[in-house]
Amino acid sequence: MPDDLIALLDRFAEIGATPGGGVRRLTGSAEDGAARRLFAEIATARGARVTVDPVGNMFATFPTAPDADTTVLCGSHLDSQPTGGRFDGSLGVLSALAAASKIHAEGGAARHNITVVNWTNEEGARFQPSLTGSSVFTGKYTADFALGLTDRLGVSMGEALEEIGFLGEDPLDLTPVRNLELHVEQGGHLEETGLQIGAVTASWGVRKLTLSFTGAPSHTGPTAMGKRRDAMRAAALAITRFHAQMEAEEALLHWSAAKIVAEPDSPNVVASRVTVYFEIRNPEQQVCTEVGDRFMQAIGPEVSALGCGIEVFTDEARPGTALDPEGVGDTLAVADELGLRATGMLTITGHDALALAAAMPSTLVFVPSVDGLSHNEAELTLPDDLRNGGAVIEALLRRWISSDSAG
Amino acid sequence: MPDDLIALLDRFAEIGATPGGGVRRLTGSAEDGAARRLFAEIATARGARVTVDPVGNMFATFPTAPDADTTVLCGSHLDSQPTGGRFDGSLGVLSALAAASKIHAEGGAARHNITVVNWTNEEGARFQPSLTGSSVFTGKYTADFALGLTDRLGVSMGEALEEIGFLGEDPLDLTPVRNLELHVEQGGHLEETGLQIGAVTASWGVRKLTLSFTGAPSHTGPTAMGKRRDAMRAAALAITRFHAQMEAEEALLHWSAAKIVAEPDSPNVVASRVTVYFEIRNPEQQVCTEVGDRFMQAIGPEVSALGCGIEVFTDEARPGTALDPEGVGDTLAVADELGLRATGMLTITGHDALALAAAMPSTLVFVPSVDGLSHNEAELTLPDDLRNGGAVIEALLRRWISSDSAG
Repeated sequence: MPDDLIALLDRFAEIGATPGGGVRRLTGSAEDGAARRLFAEIATARGARVTVDPVGNMFATFPTAPDADTTVLCGSHLDSQPTGGRFDGSLGVLSALAAASKIHAEGGAARHNITVVNWTNEEGARFQPSLTGSSVFTGKYTADFALGLTDRLGVSMGEALEEIGFLGEDPLDLTPVRNLELHVEQGGHLEETGLQIGAVTASWGVRKLTLSFTGAPSHTGPTAMGKRRDAMRAAALAITRFHAQMEAEEALLHWSAAKIVAEPDSPNVVASRVTVYFEIRNPEQQVCTEVGDRFMQAIGPEVSALGCGIEVFTDEARPGTALDPEGVGDTLAVADELGLRATGMLTITGHDALALAAAMPSTLVFVPSVDGLSHNEAELTLPDDLRNGGAVIEALLRRWISSDSAG
Repeated sequence: MPDDLIALLDRFAEIGATPGGGVRRLTGSAEDGAARRLFAEIATARGARVTVDPVGNMFATFPTAPDADTTVLCGSHLDSQPTGGRFDGSLGVLSALAAASKIHAEGGAARHNITVVNWTNEEGARFQPSLTGSSVFTGKYTADFALGLTDRLGVSMGEALEEIGFLGEDPLDLTPVRNLELHVEQGGHLEETGLQIGAVTASWGVRKLTLSFTGAPSHTGPTAMGKRRDAMRAAALAITRFHAQMEAEEALLHWSAAKIVAEPDSPNVVASRVTVYFEIRNPEQQVCTEVGDRFMQAIGPEVSALGCGIEVFTDEARPGTALDPEGVGDTLAVADELGLRATGMLTITGHDALALAAAMPSTLVFVPSVDGLSHNEAELTLPDDLRNGGAVIEALLRRWISSDSAG
């Protein structure tokens, strides 16, 4: 099946397909349910045993070592952003499925099984925080916490998963010895440097700072201007100052303020509370902390001068995570054997493989994204790059299921 | 029934009561349905014939002139902002109900009937535009247009009214000769000048300018900063510039930017479209137009420099409306007879009485608001002021139902 991976990607891209060539598969939606059912159906047909855990993580275990109680995890996520790309997440699940089913079909002896995984709610688009399923798996979050997360309409993740029939009961019953994930880079580094494979060594740190600006509701018409305490004005000023400061900082930063919630959100009522989701990213978590502190200090007096206040809604530090060095070495070695130009590199954003690194050796492999475009329907990775990534995953799985230490 | 009005206000304030002492009765909500049923029940019990028109406007006609086919309209609205005050709207409906039922019970001869009205969706909090029911009544909007307005969840006003049982079939079958409305001032003018009654001569003009800032979606993490087209950044900059410009303008202005809609509204996706509802108010509509044009010209290049665009979502001019001078004169005369200190004044914001002025002589009477607070749960008008307003309404109704011309 030389183009099995391409065929799988095409098939899944039809589920929740958007007019612009991307996909919309929010966690727990009908489209998410359809993608999950198709994944289970194909994996089962190819010889895997499929189980679903209490937060909807799906495990498709190919019995490459039927007598062993160990397994190598390999996967990513099938959920997407509201207008997401067709490879973000899907490539990791489907390259694992293609490789594992091929290795299993060949029937050679191995020391470990292979479990292809679809992690729940990696994107965090409908339910915050992101990386939910993988973080429950490692014990960072409890299942109750994850199932109780609600979307903007008040629907919980537990209700949404139950609605589509993927609220399971089966924790993984094998011991994972390693984790592996293939993902599109979502930036321009590989493309710009003419490289084909990225072996991720570590992630940037990020500070996710969600601030509520507080004012008081009043009529947008007759209320005297001097008596208004306008939380929207305060929030807009803070966002404007945020971008100006980040551009002026000396450190290498990526930053954003992408989500906003205004209350009461009526055109005729001065906003009484506006909540903004700020993110600050740098290779060093400490830099994110310092830059964020300077931002808070700078806007405090300006917001006060408008008669408004600031409440810290959430302030989450995600330190940069170092990934298993042996996995990086194996990735570079395998790429070299396949004649591919590879490099060690950092990832700027979060992935399930980073969450799993807290519990086991974890490896993240990147293939190039055209023009660095991502979380966009036009996100694209070229067919040759998809095949290269699939080949690296297959070679790493072959190596690791036969290894003593799996390391 | 000396304190009938106070008792009615207390009773209606319980429907949709909020912890802060206000009410939440969005159009077509269960609370709106409950208030409507109570209004119909009390009016019917007191001798009125209650009908509901195709957009939910409620007419409770007291037959003070059973043989006449003419009536004096008197009312306001029972819907509220999400966290609204207990007198905004309710005072107009309930003072009319108290006065009309008292006049009817006395049984004197009159030339015209009295129809107490509850206009649908005055606030525009759930369905935009505001003043919906009264504007359909005068023919400014069609019923189909009004019923097709949708809230942020996609529910139409028609569906919402049907849900609560107030999608009627009966246009008013009497000819209205005049309209009268009592409302709380929602500003500080009467309180600051020590006056008790305002006879509104005209309204300020307003320009309601809703702008969509357009960018492109991308990942908030890895996407290179130079490649982002961040619609939220553009919107925040525009709001900040808006406030600065309005403060610097020489004209007497009230202004606001209170509602914002971001897409795709995920913390991990750079915003591709952010829509902001701007309002600019001045006694002269032309000033609003000029100030708004200057704002558009000023932000255009700055938004372009961020790689973003601006689309005009709606641009509505509501010119200042002059109210019937005879009604103003009668209001001042009646107040004088009652020993109340009254003044002619402008209203900064819209009211049903302004919409109705397009179709008949229309009169708007104000009573003071404590501290000018409005669209806020703590909105307050003191009992003596409520009673003064009720007395003026009763006296005007007595005068006008007995008048030849009703003028």
